[in-house]
Amino acid sequence: MDYEGFFRDRIAKLHEEGRYRVFCDLERHRGAFPRATRRSGKAEGEVTVWCSNDYLGMGQHPKVLAAMHDALDRCGAGAGGTRNISGTTHDHVLLEHELADLHGKESALLFTSGYVSNWAALGTLGAMLPNAVILSDALNHASMIEGIRHSRTEKVIWKHNDVMDLEQKLAAIDPDRPKIVAFESVYSMDGDIAPIAEILDVCEEYGALSYIDEVHAVGMYGPRGGGVAEREGLMHRIDVIEGTLGKAFGVMGGYIAASSALCDFVRSYASGFIFSTALPPAVAAGARAAIRHLKESSAERDLQKRRVAELRARLDAIGIPHLPNPSHIVPVMVKDPVKCKYISDLLLDQWGIYVQPINYPTVPRGTERLRFTPGPLHTDADLDHLAKALESLWAQCQLARLPRAAE
Amino acid sequence: MDYEGFFRDRIAKLHEEGRYRVFCDLERHRGAFPRATRRSGKAEGEVTVWCSNDYLGMGQHPKVLAAMHDALDRCGAGAGGTRNISGTTHDHVLLEHELADLHGKESALLFTSGYVSNWAALGTLGAMLPNAVILSDALNHASMIEGIRHSRTEKVIWKHNDVMDLEQKLAAIDPDRPKIVAFESVYSMDGDIAPIAEILDVCEEYGALSYIDEVHAVGMYGPRGGGVAEREGLMHRIDVIEGTLGKAFGVMGGYIAASSALCDFVRSYASGFIFSTALPPAVAAGARAAIRHLKESSAERDLQKRRVAELRARLDAIGIPHLPNPSHIVPVMVKDPVKCKYISDLLLDQWGIYVQPINYPTVPRGTERLRFTPGPLHTDADLDHLAKALESLWAQCQLARLPRAAE
Repeated sequence: MDYEGFFRDRIAKLHEEGRYRVFCDLERHRGAFPRATRRSGKAEGEVTVWCSNDYLGMGQHPKVLAAMHDALDRCGAGAGGTRNISGTTHDHVLLEHELADLHGKESALLFTSGYVSNWAALGTLGAMLPNAVILSDALNHASMIEGIRHSRTEKVIWKHNDVMDLEQKLAAIDPDRPKIVAFESVYSMDGDIAPIAEILDVCEEYGALSYIDEVHAVGMYGPRGGGVAEREGLMHRIDVIEGTLGKAFGVMGGYIAASSALCDFVRSYASGFIFSTALPPAVAAGARAAIRHLKESSAERDLQKRRVAELRARLDAIGIPHLPNPSHIVPVMVKDPVKCKYISDLLLDQWGIYVQPINYPTVPRGTERLRFTPGPLHTDADLDHLAKALESLWAQCQLARLPRAAE
Repeated sequence: MDYEGFFRDRIAKLHEEGRYRVFCDLERHRGAFPRATRRSGKAEGEVTVWCSNDYLGMGQHPKVLAAMHDALDRCGAGAGGTRNISGTTHDHVLLEHELADLHGKESALLFTSGYVSNWAALGTLGAMLPNAVILSDALNHASMIEGIRHSRTEKVIWKHNDVMDLEQKLAAIDPDRPKIVAFESVYSMDGDIAPIAEILDVCEEYGALSYIDEVHAVGMYGPRGGGVAEREGLMHRIDVIEGTLGKAFGVMGGYIAASSALCDFVRSYASGFIFSTALPPAVAAGARAAIRHLKESSAERDLQKRRVAELRARLDAIGIPHLPNPSHIVPVMVKDPVKCKYISDLLLDQWGIYVQPINYPTVPRGTERLRFTPGPLHTDADLDHLAKALESLWAQCQLARLPRAAE
């Protein structure tokens, strides 16, 4: 077996399909986010980041940085062990209390990433609830899919955001079997939002455990940043709320919030939790500072919403097609993988605008897009520059436009 | 289905078996490691940590903390995205170069934890190499086992550290099939070390890809901290070296070091890599500072070795049984789960000594132990106090002693 040859062949295939990923090497500037210096590529220089999941710029917030500096000074760098073997510090305990409070749950449990939280929680619940069925929304994130796959329990896929289809599928399952309904609130690539209340209605009717992934919503929606379920007054009806500390909260890590018994169960049985070194105390402290701030301040959320509306209005004014949705994600549709990458390259090289092209397999072929995430730290000048750049490139690439909103 | 009742039952079962884990809530003191304040339990107060995997105290090293403070000041808290979507910062790129250099490999690839690096790398290699067989040492870590399980490829378990058994199993497999031999250098619970050269001999003879987990060895062994394989001059013969940034390097994260083609392949196909937010730049910067320091300084390693030898000598002097092994891990064997937990509780409550009891399923029943990891920051007084405590508790619990070395 020629291993090297095999690896090279598989990489070559990605190049042929235009799917090979080139990472953009950035040096961000604290206090000047979303500005960064690009360290590789043809034209080094300053760029404006338009595709960060640090949606509210909390990764730059003075309170977050102060909490992290303080924790480093108090107790050092890493946790030094798994949660069970010397790795639990008081910062972890406080953060879990903060998260339980955020979601109105008895308890919360930290993981090293959102990916691991979905993988470990769904993997453990699915494997250990006897003869369980997991009903999974068709567009669920890779981490949920892998967790369900890992559980090796029966999986039933329901049509994306289609409650009637979910109900039919629930009705067809033996009422005595444990059932888990797994879905997201905000879907990352289209920015659409699940009909949470209706999903919970059928979960309750059929005795299913409800599991929601709010990674793109925590910090962003609800009066205290508890997510879409908080905004809609539904948190108390959901069994497991999963979230991340790496997007709107600006740091890193994942968690579930649920009943004490459920959290204790996952804590005690999930391999991906038990055998991982705990998050550094400084990371826990920084995330807690971000959560506390966003429980009390809506200024970042409000300004972010304004920026999203402003970008949409500018795109409409110049006829650039973007997917309408009720969230903060603005997908500008190119619908061609080569043009999508080409526009992204020109934006970066000629306009200093960094937005990663989103191609297959992250989205279906034919729906290739540029996914913009406007934040409170983007300025009017940033918006003007972006609109001008897109208008120019759209003409250059002979891409279709919609009737201009102003016309 | 009564979900809450089910979770409570499974938790109750752990209590009955004496396997329920109670996390020790610690506040560490920078500059005074391994000292910490215990925030829960009967007797709050100062404790000395004797079971940290921050083996060399690098989590407290001024260079590491300075690098983390600096990165926070330069570019903020989190990475803000996956490596592909705005999450690659120059600190990640520099760290990957540092790791490739540490292991004499063309390339390295970062993951959010050592668990994820094993799970994602073995899972992806096993699933994608056509018709592969993974030959796994019987005592491999949970993260490797789960990665192999996730790959759904054929698994063959060979007897722990038994090269003859490995060879027989390799010989029985079709020579044309891709084969991966997965093993560790230092096994965490017994502290024994694999016969790496002999394993590589048979890997080469049978055309198998060699995959070594050096998480308990990187930073600790070899003139530059490259691990046991560096010490034995074997790194160039190993295809994949997996390591962690969360133990001797004192921070958090995992990695593989290998050929450019192999790293690029895993980078391009591993779901657990692609869909995870990148490590915070400050974590990457801190880890890089630790690695650079330990490439040049052997002082920490030398002092650590001395402390290990001193603890062993003190245990021998008072007849406390511990597992002989050639590594830095000192397992004191209690061989009874209830007594193991009891001694650990008394050490904590009455002596201010924190060492977590290691019971089933982390080790086989009947081999319950206290796993001590002496470090360069433990003092002579710490060693004296620990020996006195163990001598007293061994008498109190009527545990067997060996003939005293001094007698």
